[in-house]
Amino acid sequence: MTKPIWIKHAAQLATLASNELGPRTKEAMSNLGLIEDGSLWIEDGIIQAVGTTTELEKKYSDKPHEAEIVDATNHLVTPGLVDPHTHVVYGGSREHEFEMRLEGATYMDIMNAGGGIHATTRMTREATEQELFEQTTRRLDSFLAHGVTTIEGKSGYGMNLETELKQLRVMKRLQEQHPIDIVPTFMGAHAVPPEYKGREDEFVDYLINDMLPIIAAEKLAEFNDVFCEKGVYTPEQAERILEAGKRFGLIPKIHADEIEPYGGAELAAKIGAISAEHLLKASDEGIKAMAKAGTIACLLPATALYLREEAAAGRKMIDAGVAVAISTDCNPGSSPTTSMPLVMNLACISMRLTPAESLIAATYNAACAINRQDQVGSLEVGKQADIVIWKTKSYQELQYLFGVNHVKSVWKKGIKVV
Amino acid sequence: MTKPIWIKHAAQLATLASNELGPRTKEAMSNLGLIEDGSLWIEDGIIQAVGTTTELEKKYSDKPHEAEIVDATNHLVTPGLVDPHTHVVYGGSREHEFEMRLEGATYMDIMNAGGGIHATTRMTREATEQELFEQTTRRLDSFLAHGVTTIEGKSGYGMNLETELKQLRVMKRLQEQHPIDIVPTFMGAHAVPPEYKGREDEFVDYLINDMLPIIAAEKLAEFNDVFCEKGVYTPEQAERILEAGKRFGLIPKIHADEIEPYGGAELAAKIGAISAEHLLKASDEGIKAMAKAGTIACLLPATALYLREEAAAGRKMIDAGVAVAISTDCNPGSSPTTSMPLVMNLACISMRLTPAESLIAATYNAACAINRQDQVGSLEVGKQADIVIWKTKSYQELQYLFGVNHVKSVWKKGIKVV
Ligand SMILES: [Zn+2]
Ligand SMILES: [Zn+2]
Repeated sequence: MTKPIWIKHAAQLATLASNELGPRTKEAMSNLGLIEDGSLWIEDGIIQAVGTTTELEKKYSDKPHEAEIVDATNHLVTPGLVDPHTHVVYGGSREHEFEMRLEGATYMDIMNAGGGIHATTRMTREATEQELFEQTTRRLDSFLAHGVTTIEGKSGYGMNLETELKQLRVMKRLQEQHPIDIVPTFMGAHAVPPEYKGREDEFVDYLINDMLPIIAAEKLAEFNDVFCEKGVYTPEQAERILEAGKRFGLIPKIHADEIEPYGGAELAAKIGAISAEHLLKASDEGIKAMAKAGTIACLLPATALYLREEAAAGRKMIDAGVAVAISTDCNPGSSPTTSMPLVMNLACISMRLTPAESLIAATYNAACAINRQDQVGSLEVGKQADIVIWKTKSYQELQYLFGVNHVKSVWKKGIKVV
Repeated sequence: MTKPIWIKHAAQLATLASNELGPRTKEAMSNLGLIEDGSLWIEDGIIQAVGTTTELEKKYSDKPHEAEIVDATNHLVTPGLVDPHTHVVYGGSREHEFEMRLEGATYMDIMNAGGGIHATTRMTREATEQELFEQTTRRLDSFLAHGVTTIEGKSGYGMNLETELKQLRVMKRLQEQHPIDIVPTFMGAHAVPPEYKGREDEFVDYLINDMLPIIAAEKLAEFNDVFCEKGVYTPEQAERILEAGKRFGLIPKIHADEIEPYGGAELAAKIGAISAEHLLKASDEGIKAMAKAGTIACLLPATALYLREEAAAGRKMIDAGVAVAISTDCNPGSSPTTSMPLVMNLACISMRLTPAESLIAATYNAACAINRQDQVGSLEVGKQADIVIWKTKSYQELQYLFGVNHVKSVWKKGIKVV
């Protein structure tokens, strides 16, 4: 048995505890369950007690010296961050494409030079499982250094059975071997593979008949995601894929309304998707439908910044009753970043979330978007001891002093990993 | 005598060496003087040799074992970053104002709650010199951790003689005691102090007759800066202040055309300012005049992001022949950040600078903007050994993997400080 850990004297302990079940909406998105001079008692990786330091001093008055003491005086303490939308498992790197673009190359120049998503698909197909494992490990290390303790990961740079399986198996190995918890999503319909151009329905058939059964049988994914956008997959094709996934027990997610309003938000609500992603151009009707259905909006402000697009209407969605989560969208094309702290800053700056809403969107609501709210996303008795101690003294300062990684230390299941 | 240091095997050594004197423009802003498998030999804080590792192995074949070896295999090595525009010395903090604003408070609500620049002025006036020194030290530590080895600092939160002197004396002490070099700018005309509202010309007289002579006599500043903007100081008032400063040997800088086109860029060119700052709304004529006069454009894309403004037209300015530098603008109101790496990323993302231009804007051209190009900003024989070793393997990757502080280690005058 390992020694208990007692984190004490936190200037602000943001527990995010609440009696409400399910994702937080409206006013509940502002309730951080703040405790001043807060304390946490951890045993065997699980939170055993949460309260003021005075309360815990009483509770454990018979054994204060049994615990390892972590002094958090002058520091903010929060749950580990959760990133509910990443494409973190990919081969190769595309910094030369980034440079080419800034040097004036056109989209066609880049395609002709073998760039874009199909470059990543090619490099991911070519990479060995071991290479993918090592590349992704480095990215997960960076996520961890930025306070992220649970992450979602999508396949989708294979778009053939072999490579999709390879990506998902890499996630399975990472789940076993890396401190970060990685939650797998199958996203075979991430783009139209070049060999199926103009035959999208055939690819949908292939995906439903040949890919889904095997992925489900090997239990390699919990979620099923589709890129529903004009010129990629129609709402009808997306619905077929997601309904088929449901029959195999996969929970639907949708990349929706990123480039133009296309009914993606509406579809997410209709089929009971757990979340809809991007939503830069979601219609008012779509937002209303999501609020009614309880679909989480997973918003990606770093992607909007990188693509020079206006960020999603986060403020409006919260005011309309939608539960908002935020994410890096970590991927080699439109958001090559691993910084959830920057994403929290951008949620405030670009989407007008309050500092409190931004933190909930990056923890509890993010956990809900990947169905992990029973284990992580808040600091409550019985939950995993996934914890960040920040260099800042308050959650306000964390959001205000932007562009800086303020992580001081990170605990995963009660073990100090950063 | 300390041991020589030999940094060797850099994947990319970006020397920024050039035969051209003065700030880099046009194509010269793309020439990083890259050496693959690069080496640097440092003695007594000064660079003694720069070249390929093979070249230095020959040059020092008689004494390779005298040096401390730093292996930079797989790493990018650059000059220390230079931040040529900060308001880093200030009292208090304004995170609660940030939260209030996001919670829906109006400008007037915040003013009534004692917010805005006048809040910082009040807190800076109230702070002791020691308190300001300690607060600023923490910020400089963060700059250093982000690869910045030289920084400009402005007074301007006093707007009375006593507090302006206090801010400048804090910089003098920091220059003596902190590893970062801090270059002082007097900016008494940063805003209109409340007690002079409507009597701006009287304040200009006071500044010229009562402040400038003392600051010059105490040698507390090298530059003289003015906030030239509608409703603050007119171009005529700015010119009076800057011409008066010149007579005391202070080099002019101008906060110009941030909120609307107001002739600030034109004035900067006309009076021979070393740089003009912000320039979000600079006119085409102003840009042309700056190119002709050799005025450096000091652009602040993190401020634009934080204020949700479109960033300055960096691409257009470079194409027009203006030398561009970039900066955090670190200040408690419009840019509370200490991350020059993020500013480099934003220069690419928001202003369409290439990765190479962005690096030059944050090193050599930034050094030119504070008249330090003879000592820092490039890695050449005889210059200070101010060096960053990055975790990334290339300058392209440094700009592409955005939002992350990729600093591995920092050397200031040949001493490892991070
Ligand atoms: Zn995505
Ligand atoms: Zn400024």
